[in-house]
Amino acid sequence: MELFTYENIIGIAAGICTSIAMLPQLIKVIKTKETADLSVTMIGVLIVGVSLWVYYGFLQNEVPIILSNSFSVVVNLTLLICWFLFRKKS
Amino acid sequence: MELFTYENIIGIAAGICTSIAMLPQLIKVIKTKETADLSVTMIGVLIVGVSLWVYYGFLQNEVPIILSNSFSVVVNLTLLICWFLFRKKS
Repeated sequence: MELFTYENIIGIAAGICTSIAMLPQLIKVIKTKETADLSVTMIGVLIVGVSLWVYYGFLQNEVPIILSNSFSVVVNLTLLICWFLFRKKS
Repeated sequence: MELFTYENIIGIAAGICTSIAMLPQLIKVIKTKETADLSVTMIGVLIVGVSLWVYYGFLQNEVPIILSNSFSVVVNLTLLICWFLFRKKS
């Protein structure tokens, strides 16, 4: 399996964009310790969704799918942990 | 190309979860006409990202990738239109 095929470069570029777009919310939550605007149900649904995408990436043996969705799992697990840590403040 | 392979069912399930998780923000913006919390830069980055994922889906001929990211393009274009329509109110 070659990593830098045309398809993979497009997929990695796509993954970088969608990963960058997730960061402001995470940074905001960590800075403000304010999670009242977060829906824990939706974070849960999103973690299930992106975990399934990681599994799908392994089934199809596609590195861009695995990488970008693994990053998304980490971001959303961090948001979930923040929600539990900070919810008493809200 | 068969649609209901095991891989596609996993991918479609993943896509349904990540699509559902996008809806509350869209519904909130349409209901409240309040877009002050939205970053137009990040919506732009996200539209570029999910459009590249759609292109990647076509390159790889993968229906779950195409469907779920096309949905995401529509949601984020709607958010962008809302941002332009409602920004004077903010």
